[in-house]
Amino acid sequence: MAPPHVLLNAFEMNAVGHLAHGVWSHPEDRATGYRRIGYWMELARILERGLFDGLFLADVTGVYDVHGGGAATAIERAVQLPVNDPAVLVPAMAAVTRHLGFGITADVSAEPPHLFARRMSTLDHLSDGRLAWNIVTGFLDSAARATGAAGTLPHDDRYDRADDFMQVAYKLWEASWDDDAVIRDRAARRYADPAKVRAVRHDGPYFRLDAIHLAEPSPQRTPVLFQAGASARGLDFAAAHAECIFIPADGGPGTRAIVQRIEDRLAAAGRDRSAVKIFGSLQTVIGRRRAEAVEKYHDYAAHAVPEAALAQLSAATGIDFGSLDPDAPIPIPPGGGNAIRSILAGLGSAGEGPPTVRRLLAGLALGGRFRPLIGSAGEVAEEIGRRVAESGIDGFNLVRTVAPGSFIDAADLLVPELQARRLYKTGYAEGTLREKLFGRGPRLGAGHPAAAVRTGQGRAGQGGAGQGRAGQGRGE
Amino acid sequence: MAPPHVLLNAFEMNAVGHLAHGVWSHPEDRATGYRRIGYWMELARILERGLFDGLFLADVTGVYDVHGGGAATAIERAVQLPVNDPAVLVPAMAAVTRHLGFGITADVSAEPPHLFARRMSTLDHLSDGRLAWNIVTGFLDSAARATGAAGTLPHDDRYDRADDFMQVAYKLWEASWDDDAVIRDRAARRYADPAKVRAVRHDGPYFRLDAIHLAEPSPQRTPVLFQAGASARGLDFAAAHAECIFIPADGGPGTRAIVQRIEDRLAAAGRDRSAVKIFGSLQTVIGRRRAEAVEKYHDYAAHAVPEAALAQLSAATGIDFGSLDPDAPIPIPPGGGNAIRSILAGLGSAGEGPPTVRRLLAGLALGGRFRPLIGSAGEVAEEIGRRVAESGIDGFNLVRTVAPGSFIDAADLLVPELQARRLYKTGYAEGTLREKLFGRGPRLGAGHPAAAVRTGQGRAGQGGAGQGRAGQGRGE
Repeated sequence: MAPPHVLLNAFEMNAVGHLAHGVWSHPEDRATGYRRIGYWMELARILERGLFDGLFLADVTGVYDVHGGGAATAIERAVQLPVNDPAVLVPAMAAVTRHLGFGITADVSAEPPHLFARRMSTLDHLSDGRLAWNIVTGFLDSAARATGAAGTLPHDDRYDRADDFMQVAYKLWEASWDDDAVIRDRAARRYADPAKVRAVRHDGPYFRLDAIHLAEPSPQRTPVLFQAGASARGLDFAAAHAECIFIPADGGPGTRAIVQRIEDRLAAAGRDRSAVKIFGSLQTVIGRRRAEAVEKYHDYAAHAVPEAALAQLSAATGIDFGSLDPDAPIPIPPGGGNAIRSILAGLGSAGEGPPTVRRLLAGLALGGRFRPLIGSAGEVAEEIGRRVAESGIDGFNLVRTVAPGSFIDAADLLVPELQARRLYKTGYAEGTLREKLFGRGPRLGAGHPAAAVRTGQGRAGQGGAGQGRAGQGRGE
Repeated sequence: MAPPHVLLNAFEMNAVGHLAHGVWSHPEDRATGYRRIGYWMELARILERGLFDGLFLADVTGVYDVHGGGAATAIERAVQLPVNDPAVLVPAMAAVTRHLGFGITADVSAEPPHLFARRMSTLDHLSDGRLAWNIVTGFLDSAARATGAAGTLPHDDRYDRADDFMQVAYKLWEASWDDDAVIRDRAARRYADPAKVRAVRHDGPYFRLDAIHLAEPSPQRTPVLFQAGASARGLDFAAAHAECIFIPADGGPGTRAIVQRIEDRLAAAGRDRSAVKIFGSLQTVIGRRRAEAVEKYHDYAAHAVPEAALAQLSAATGIDFGSLDPDAPIPIPPGGGNAIRSILAGLGSAGEGPPTVRRLLAGLALGGRFRPLIGSAGEVAEEIGRRVAESGIDGFNLVRTVAPGSFIDAADLLVPELQARRLYKTGYAEGTLREKLFGRGPRLGAGHPAAAVRTGQGRAGQGGAGQGRAGQGRGE
C-alpha cells in the first residue's frame, strides 16, 4: 500500500520576524514587504504552485516583554512585533488561488464572539470554503493588559473560557440558519425563509448571547479547526474540538510519544484518529545539492540574531533568560516546568548536561528554536518521508527562514522530490478545505461537538459527502 | 472662480440589500454575488474608472426586529441581513486600484479597541493610506444582545463611551510609535529603535489599556474619520472628531440648515470649516436620455419591496409600522421625536398632511427612503452642481439602486457630464486618502484631538504637507 501523502502548510505570520529572528536582514529576504498586499498575493501563488495544503498564519496580540524586563529586544529585533492582523489578508490571497487553504490564528481571550464568528463566516464565503481557524487562548500578560485586564486568567480557566466561546461560535455557525434557509427566489423577491432562521441563545459562565447570526451559511460553516494545546487541559480541548493539531515536534525522536498521547486523548473523547490530522513543525534549508544547502545555512545563520529568539523563549516560559548567568543551569520554576522542559527538549543542539543560556543560544543559530533539516531536496524529501512514517504525524508546518525564498525552495525543489517518492499529491482534490483534508463532506461530522448544537434542517447536513452544501446555492 | 469639485463616494454594504430593498431581484442586479471577492474587486475597478473618491461600506451588527415584532421581514427580504464583515474586503480591492479610498463602518459598542486599532492600521498599510473609518455607536438592541448586554446604553452614554474609545484608539495610533521609530537597518539587524516605541496607557470610564500598539505606523496612522451623528450629542461628537460628516439630506431644501448647524458646531469646537467635508446621500437613476431614465425608474420600482424598507424604518425609529392603521397619523412617541421627524421629513413623496403608513410606503417606491434624482446624465449633473452650490455640502454618498449598474451609470454617464461642467476632477491627486481629500499632510492636523495624545517625535509630524511621512520609510 502506498504511504499516505504528507500534508504541508506554510507557517507564516503577518510580521517581519516570525521564527527565524534576524534573518529579515538577509539581502534576499523580503519580509519587510509584509505591509503590502501584493507580497501576500505572490506568496499565495507560490504555495499553490507547490500544492501546499494551506498557508497558516500565526498571531500574537501582545509583546514579548519578559526578556531583560521589557520589550526592547522584541522591538529592536522585530520579534513578532510589529504584527499585523492576519484575517484581512485572506480574501486577496483567495482571489489569486483556487485551492490553497488559509489558517487564521485568533485568540478567544480577545475577540468578541459574535463579530469574530461573522468575520470567519465572511472569510469562508470569500474563499469559497477554504478557511481554517487556529484556536488560541492567549498566554501573554501583555496581551491581557491590552484588553484592560490585569493579566491572563489562570491556565485552566482560559480553556474553560475557550470551551464557552466555542459553544457560542458553534451555535452561530451551525444553528442559526438552516441549510435550506436561503432561497434567493427572484420572482417572489424572497431571499430567505424566516421559518428557517432563528436567534441562538447562550448563557454560559463567560459568554451570553441572543442573536441571529449575521452571515448566511458559508460553505464549511464552522471553519476547519486547528489547535496546538500541549498541556493536559490543552490536549483535552484539542481532542474535543480540533480537526488539525499542531505539535511542538519536528517528526524526530520523541514525536511518536506525543502523537500517542494525542491518540489516547482522541480515543478517550470518542473521536476517530482519522478525524484529526497531526502536524509537526519543520524548518528546512534546501539546495539543489547538499553543499549548496550547507552554504545557504551558514549564510542565513550569519544574519540570524539568537538573542532575539531568546526574547520569544523568555515570554513563552516566563523566565528572563537575559538576567541569568549564561553558564549556570537554568532554574525551572515550580509549576512552570512542563512548558519549559518541552521547549528545551526541542533544542537538540543545546548539548549534553543541564540546559544553560549559552547552550540555548547555540540551539538558536537560525534565530529560532527549530533544528533545521539541511540538505539537497532529495535528501530532505527522504527524511520527511521517514519522519512521517516513524512518528505517525500527517504532515508539517514549514517554517520560513528567508521570506519567501524558503517557500519557493519548498515549492520548486522539495515538492517534486516528494512527488517522485509518491509522498505528495500531484494535484488538489476538489471542494472545500475540509473536503480536501478529510475526503468527506464540507461540514463537521456528527461526532463533533459542533454537530450537537444543530437544529432544524441543519441537523440533516452532518458531514456526509456533499451533504450540507446542497441547500446553499453557491452556484447561483 | 471655478466651483470646488463635487466629492463622490459609492455607498455600499457587504450585503444583498442595502437601501433599495427588493431590487436585488431585478434581472440585472448582481448583489447576491456579495459573497465572492471578485464581485468587490470589479466594483472597485468601476469606481476608480469613475474617479470616485471612495467606496463607503455601511454596516450593522444586529437585525431589524421591530417591524411586526420580529425579524421575519428583514430575513425574508434581505433587509441588511445577511450582512458580512466589511473590513476584510479592503485589501483585495486595494490590490486592483491605486487611488480609491475605502470607508469602513465599525461600531465602538462592539469592537475591542486594541484589536480594532490593529486591524485599521493593517488596512491602512495594505491600502497604502487609503483607509477611512465611519464611527458608529450602535442603536439596535439586537446588536447589544449579541454582545451579551440586555440592550443598548442610553443615547448620550453611548457617545460618552465612544469618546473614551476614541482616546484609546488615538493613543494606539498616534502615541505608541514615533515617526522615526522604524529604522529597518539591515546591516545592524535593527528593525526599530526601542527608545521610540512605548506602551500607551489609558484608564477611562469605559476602557482601560496598557499596551504597545502592535502595528508600526501606517501612512495615515489614524484613518480618515467619518461620522454621521444627527442628534445634539452626535453633532458635538462629529464636530470634535469627524473629518467627513454624513448628513441625512440629499442637497435639496432643508440641507442648508443642517450644514449651518454643523458649521456652528465646528466653530464652537474651534475647528475650521475646511477641516471637514460634508456629504449628503443621493440616489440617482440615470439614462442616456431622460425617457430612458424614467423607464429605468419604473422598471426598478417594479422590483422594489417598500414594506421591506418599512422594516428598516421601524428599527431606526422604534415604531412598529406593521402594527399601525395605515391611514391613521403615525404616533410619535415622546422623546423619540427628532429621529422620526428627520426621517419622515426626508420622505418627500409622503404627501401633505400628517404622515401615515400609507404615505410612508408611497415614499419608499424604490425600496428605501431616498427621493431619487431621475434624468439624463446631463440633467443629473446640472442638478448635483446646483444642490452643492445651494446647500454648502462638499459631495454625496451615491446610493445604489441596482448593483453594480447604478455605479456603472455614475462612472460612465454621470462623471463625464460633471467633468464637462468643471464640477468634478479629471484625475486623482497623489498621496493618501487624507491628502487627496484635504490637500494637506497624511496625518490629522494639530487642532484635532488625535494630535493632543502625540508624544516624542510623533508631535513633530502634525499635519503639515508631507510631514509625518518622512520617517516611515515606505519607499524601502
